[in-house]
Amino acid sequence: MKTFNVQLDERSYPIYIGTSLLSQTELMTKHISHEHVFVISNEKVAPLYLDKVLNSFKNFKCGYHILPDGENHKNIDSMQAIYTSLIEKHYDRNTTLVALGGGVIGDLTGFAAATYQRGINFIQVPTTLLAQVDSSVGGKTGVNHPLGKNMIGSFYQPRCVIADLSTLKTLDGRELSAGVAEIIKYGLIRDPDFFSWLEKNIKKLIDRDPEALAYAVHRSCENKAQIVAEDELEKSGTRALLNFGHTFGHAIETSLGYGVWLHGEAVAYGMLMAMRLSVKQGWLTEHDYLRVRKLLDQANLPIKAPNNMLAEKFIQHMSVDKKVREGKLYLVLLKSIGEAILTAEFNSALLNETLDECCKS
Amino acid sequence: MKTFNVQLDERSYPIYIGTSLLSQTELMTKHISHEHVFVISNEKVAPLYLDKVLNSFKNFKCGYHILPDGENHKNIDSMQAIYTSLIEKHYDRNTTLVALGGGVIGDLTGFAAATYQRGINFIQVPTTLLAQVDSSVGGKTGVNHPLGKNMIGSFYQPRCVIADLSTLKTLDGRELSAGVAEIIKYGLIRDPDFFSWLEKNIKKLIDRDPEALAYAVHRSCENKAQIVAEDELEKSGTRALLNFGHTFGHAIETSLGYGVWLHGEAVAYGMLMAMRLSVKQGWLTEHDYLRVRKLLDQANLPIKAPNNMLAEKFIQHMSVDKKVREGKLYLVLLKSIGEAILTAEFNSALLNETLDECCKS
Repeated sequence: MKTFNVQLDERSYPIYIGTSLLSQTELMTKHISHEHVFVISNEKVAPLYLDKVLNSFKNFKCGYHILPDGENHKNIDSMQAIYTSLIEKHYDRNTTLVALGGGVIGDLTGFAAATYQRGINFIQVPTTLLAQVDSSVGGKTGVNHPLGKNMIGSFYQPRCVIADLSTLKTLDGRELSAGVAEIIKYGLIRDPDFFSWLEKNIKKLIDRDPEALAYAVHRSCENKAQIVAEDELEKSGTRALLNFGHTFGHAIETSLGYGVWLHGEAVAYGMLMAMRLSVKQGWLTEHDYLRVRKLLDQANLPIKAPNNMLAEKFIQHMSVDKKVREGKLYLVLLKSIGEAILTAEFNSALLNETLDECCKS
Repeated sequence: MKTFNVQLDERSYPIYIGTSLLSQTELMTKHISHEHVFVISNEKVAPLYLDKVLNSFKNFKCGYHILPDGENHKNIDSMQAIYTSLIEKHYDRNTTLVALGGGVIGDLTGFAAATYQRGINFIQVPTTLLAQVDSSVGGKTGVNHPLGKNMIGSFYQPRCVIADLSTLKTLDGRELSAGVAEIIKYGLIRDPDFFSWLEKNIKKLIDRDPEALAYAVHRSCENKAQIVAEDELEKSGTRALLNFGHTFGHAIETSLGYGVWLHGEAVAYGMLMAMRLSVKQGWLTEHDYLRVRKLLDQANLPIKAPNNMLAEKFIQHMSVDKKVREGKLYLVLLKSIGEAILTAEFNSALLNETLDECCKS
């Protein structure tokens, strides 16, 4: 097992990465300061791992709430259902919530913890690759609004993150690839050596080679923890670089309807779009663009826009993105592989050209 | 104009108290760091003061959202309506929300600010006495759940509080008295000299004598600011003392339906119930209890339980209160006028006796 710390003063917390961690009872219980625990999971994950988790809490008052699976349930209605469950079953302020599932469960549970009785503790137990390398680390919590993804939420840090690599065995292939998209992102925005490693090891990763997976999760979490420690609340711009591909990606997700494309799939193609624009700006070489395109393709990620996606849809959805400030759209673009910038200083005609080309391809 | 600071390190902020403050444009604009402002108000307050506030923001992009009036609208549906309005009108993360109204508007607006795009700035402009002396100061934000009052929310501090005493002229008598209930509370829990002052000046206060009002608001805010600075997140127990009368009061509000009794009315009678129990415990003298009862009566506040309120209803609603920890109910009780304690060490038979007596009276 490897352990990292996300350094945030009194909000610091460890990320544990390893195999069979769910069987290590003490790993979870040592982060729970009172005897009330409430697990939130979904219909897909609960049959696989809920019993194992409940087993850790035999000596606790421990309940659970199971949500339907999917991004389209990451909304206010699910929040209200969680609150109702907690109140009806008399869970008080000393309760610790446990998020058992992928990014949707993690974001919902974190936001429930941030807002139930004005804030209670929570633990992240991510069971998808995407959640292990991205959403469970860093304290972004929230839900979608029908008009925009992640528009409602707060920054709220967990007490710990337990990334049990053994849970990845049951993950379906599409979900695995979606996680690889976020892993590739770290290489692209700040870690060129890791990107080279990924080019060499992508087949192993997709084949779930345990060593390759462990290395990729570990290196991704390390990158994420450094960024979050530097800019917890996305004030300085450093953390915003993590949104590489996300503004385009969110437009795809919102436009198609949440859950039609997986978040990681939308981000993968969003990164390609951002790189296309970066090439047009003269910042990135065509050669590097093609390297990334090839890698995404090898990872079974989309390298074409969704059918019927219109350039106007992108414009419409990108205009309500959280990256809009005072009417200006900020995008994360690449100067080279391993070097990203957050900027509003791009040529908007080139953006339109990019959207048109991508939608026609 | 008087100014206090709520001392909370980088979250510190001023409370301005005075007359005609809404006309002092600069007072508000100096706390707004970008050019986007969005005012949230209700159907009762907006016709009176919205134009005045908008006038301060002539040079800003400034919109507004008007909610129906009343505690029964302090819920998730109103939150969703605010989010929709903000997204549709393209208000971004650099927007400052302005809460123009009473406690309901302040709590909703604060929670919207805490959760829109993971947190934006907001300003409190309380227009009721209760909001000026209590809810607008200290960063408690949130909404009610059908099963419990204020069960959903977060701690989130405003950039400033502007308490314009001139707005109290239009307040109806019942609302004024509701505010006086919270003012009396400060005397009871920590400021015996202020309580004596209130006994002497209650008629002036109810008659809206400007000097008496100014003094009462000022002294109340001073008390509140000290408590909040000491225990922002209600961890040490100090801040919990502000909930004197609230556990009983919330049970009344939830049981009757939000808005049937005003919050301050429910708190007033809740304080009497807590004092009744304090007398039974042998902590408070009957004489002091009667002093308070008389003062509340002079302030036109309820000194009897609502008709048809059953002891069982209190038990049921108090068992889901935020003051329940690990199955134990904590209550704020009085040792004497000016000295409150948070305790689970009361005799539960005496609590039942108190509930029975109060419901039969």
